[in-house]
Amino acid sequence: MGDPRLDASAEEIALAARRVMTRCDDLAKVSADSDRIARVYLSPEHARVNRLASRWMREVGMRTWQDAAGNQVGRLDVLDSPARGGAAAGFEPPRRHNETPALVLGSHLDTVLDAGRYDGIAGVLIALEVVRLLAVPGPDGTPRSPFPFAIEVIAFSDEEGTRFGKALLGSSAVAGTWADDWWSLTDADGITLRQAFLEFGLDPGRVDEAARSPRDVVGYLEAHIEQGPELDRRGESLAVVSSIASARRFQLVVSGEARHAGGTPYDMRHDALLGASEAALAVEQICRAEHHIIGTVGQFEAFPGSVNVIPGETRFSLDLRGEFDDHRDQVWQQITGELDMITARRGLRWRALEVHNAPAVMCAPLFRDVIAEGIRSTLSPGAEEPATLFSRAGHDGMSIGAITDVGMLFLRNPDGISHHPDESVSTADVALGIQALAESVLHLAAESALRR
Amino acid sequence: MGDPRLDASAEEIALAARRVMTRCDDLAKVSADSDRIARVYLSPEHARVNRLASRWMREVGMRTWQDAAGNQVGRLDVLDSPARGGAAAGFEPPRRHNETPALVLGSHLDTVLDAGRYDGIAGVLIALEVVRLLAVPGPDGTPRSPFPFAIEVIAFSDEEGTRFGKALLGSSAVAGTWADDWWSLTDADGITLRQAFLEFGLDPGRVDEAARSPRDVVGYLEAHIEQGPELDRRGESLAVVSSIASARRFQLVVSGEARHAGGTPYDMRHDALLGASEAALAVEQICRAEHHIIGTVGQFEAFPGSVNVIPGETRFSLDLRGEFDDHRDQVWQQITGELDMITARRGLRWRALEVHNAPAVMCAPLFRDVIAEGIRSTLSPGAEEPATLFSRAGHDGMSIGAITDVGMLFLRNPDGISHHPDESVSTADVALGIQALAESVLHLAAESALRR
Repeated sequence: MGDPRLDASAEEIALAARRVMTRCDDLAKVSADSDRIARVYLSPEHARVNRLASRWMREVGMRTWQDAAGNQVGRLDVLDSPARGGAAAGFEPPRRHNETPALVLGSHLDTVLDAGRYDGIAGVLIALEVVRLLAVPGPDGTPRSPFPFAIEVIAFSDEEGTRFGKALLGSSAVAGTWADDWWSLTDADGITLRQAFLEFGLDPGRVDEAARSPRDVVGYLEAHIEQGPELDRRGESLAVVSSIASARRFQLVVSGEARHAGGTPYDMRHDALLGASEAALAVEQICRAEHHIIGTVGQFEAFPGSVNVIPGETRFSLDLRGEFDDHRDQVWQQITGELDMITARRGLRWRALEVHNAPAVMCAPLFRDVIAEGIRSTLSPGAEEPATLFSRAGHDGMSIGAITDVGMLFLRNPDGISHHPDESVSTADVALGIQALAESVLHLAAESALRR
Repeated sequence: MGDPRLDASAEEIALAARRVMTRCDDLAKVSADSDRIARVYLSPEHARVNRLASRWMREVGMRTWQDAAGNQVGRLDVLDSPARGGAAAGFEPPRRHNETPALVLGSHLDTVLDAGRYDGIAGVLIALEVVRLLAVPGPDGTPRSPFPFAIEVIAFSDEEGTRFGKALLGSSAVAGTWADDWWSLTDADGITLRQAFLEFGLDPGRVDEAARSPRDVVGYLEAHIEQGPELDRRGESLAVVSSIASARRFQLVVSGEARHAGGTPYDMRHDALLGASEAALAVEQICRAEHHIIGTVGQFEAFPGSVNVIPGETRFSLDLRGEFDDHRDQVWQQITGELDMITARRGLRWRALEVHNAPAVMCAPLFRDVIAEGIRSTLSPGAEEPATLFSRAGHDGMSIGAITDVGMLFLRNPDGISHHPDESVSTADVALGIQALAESVLHLAAESALRR
């Protein structure tokens, strides 16, 4: 690889990081509730943060528009593109043809309920600072991309799925994988996704216009807090993401025999609760013994649920995540083998219904490489190689992977606390993240030039 | 002990047993539902079975009355008591004073929902056959008790507690332990116990009149199906009951930390479900290792109960029964020690609320002896000693123990199936039960004579 270097002073980068932190605080104030952060898809708060993001995008020289699914987009055109008459808000989206393909940077601005202020949001703001650092003046004096590709920043409108239960709505629209049956999804007040679109001022019939074609996009890069404690424990600031794991989810039922608690001695019992308890502990034991596999039993209830009746049935959920689909599936096989043994020993039966199964999205090798180069630029000579982590949480890249290569950069998340008001990231790590992501783009541009 | 022998032929006893079985079938037809047995306190079915029982009591020469709590009572007076003008239904209860004390035989006629036909009922009908076999003609030709004590049979009106949630209402009235706050207990239709009394034709203000004084009663003997499989597994017909165990019941809470299933690695988890699962398995392990202790976790639920959130709290019940209170309490101490260890290891907390605690009722040594003698009379010479079991289920004797000594005789219950339509007892075992209980009364009378 070549050795492009970012032309920015440490002061510039530190200032950029402080701006990210201040803006995270500003966005945290845009909430449906006064005592916690709650900002969901197609809400008045969604419109307000899009207007803020649009203003900040224009400030760094981007053309901006809100797409047909409510994602806020900014575009930094290439040097040799014609002038577009300035950076007006609500500008028409770029015509799809004859445009230079863009590298997309981004993350999301929506939140869970009682959220932290960095999950997704920090990634959008870091992307804007990267644009600021990389942009060069064009022939008309407006900022331009110095690379063979344009740069877009997308602030996705729905990643968490808080309002309609279905996650990644915003990025699915961009990936062109929006499904018609989603229109009838309802929120807690019974409002359908279709109604919410109309109330927000969007036209459900035009959602396809948000979709981007693979030829419009050269790749997708996202910075995100880790949502886990690995970097914090290693004492490192940044990591390359190897893949975004996706959970398989099961609803399991262990069945036995409900009998009177008083009269039934142990050797005549077929206690579904005890079998399911063993199963939950077996999930823990099996997954702990494996690398990068995690299994969680989150729902668990015994029936009939009387104080003096031996449980005849126990229902529980299993959420199983792994870096690689085949490894995760092997672990599921181990778990089913253990379930067979437990239930045979106790005279029980079991069955499972798979309710969710999405493959892991592997980050593209080239993108892993350029992000590693970007992180190396932040390390002192002789430091260890950048950490590589897989993401156990879902991200917009899972959708965007359908149309282009994906790369991700993780920032240290103290104590791994996320989806919680105590979620945090340090200003110093944000500065390193800005530097690393900007360097990554430079490395990607150099690679692209080499491959031409 | 002396060696009184029952003056009855094998044919007489076999006939008595067949009558018990036929009458169990007859009573099974008296149900609120056409497709299952359901006969609850103060219902029209309760009144109907009392009338049937009263008729059968009079048939063996007893005076009968329904007491102030709806219990059906029959009394066989002693030989030297004055004639009482025949066995009319609804006869006035005996005056409390100057009556010869009575040995009470009995059990209950109410049922759980979807009940079997023998739990309680067989005991009442066996008692009537015992009276038939033991009675002798009095001076006026009416049957009398040949003993220094009268014999009463009480068909208790509520043992199961099906209607008002509180068990042993009938026998509590007889024991004089009726509590005023029970009047406001309601059934599934919102009818209070007080209203139900009035609708049944009973006067709530007179319930105390059902109470018997210790000086009225020389003891209480009950035959009952085992409601467990021990005799069936030993291949024996009858057992002496050593005590009636009473459960201690607890509501337990294990608390940890609810965190995101994706981002939280195992060594940072404080999973309340896994701790509670270990606790449920520890209860099983500890109780299995003890003699005559049984612990059941019947209710068990994890919270918040989301598929992708590590449970932060798990609530579960514990029903703990043992033959001896102190042993049972030692086992509870073991369980709490195990809970301390489990929760310390996992960084969890636990707490328990005791919601029920009643001491075991020990059967009186003399009554255990005479019942053992009664059972021996049914065994061939050289047979093993009669089995002694403790009752894990509750019985009317738990209330009656407050006013007099209690003895119980268990009959084999195939496969231990009880509180279920498949509940059964064999005619042959009922015959042995009749013989053993009659012999027990003879032995008790002989002992009483010796002690005079």
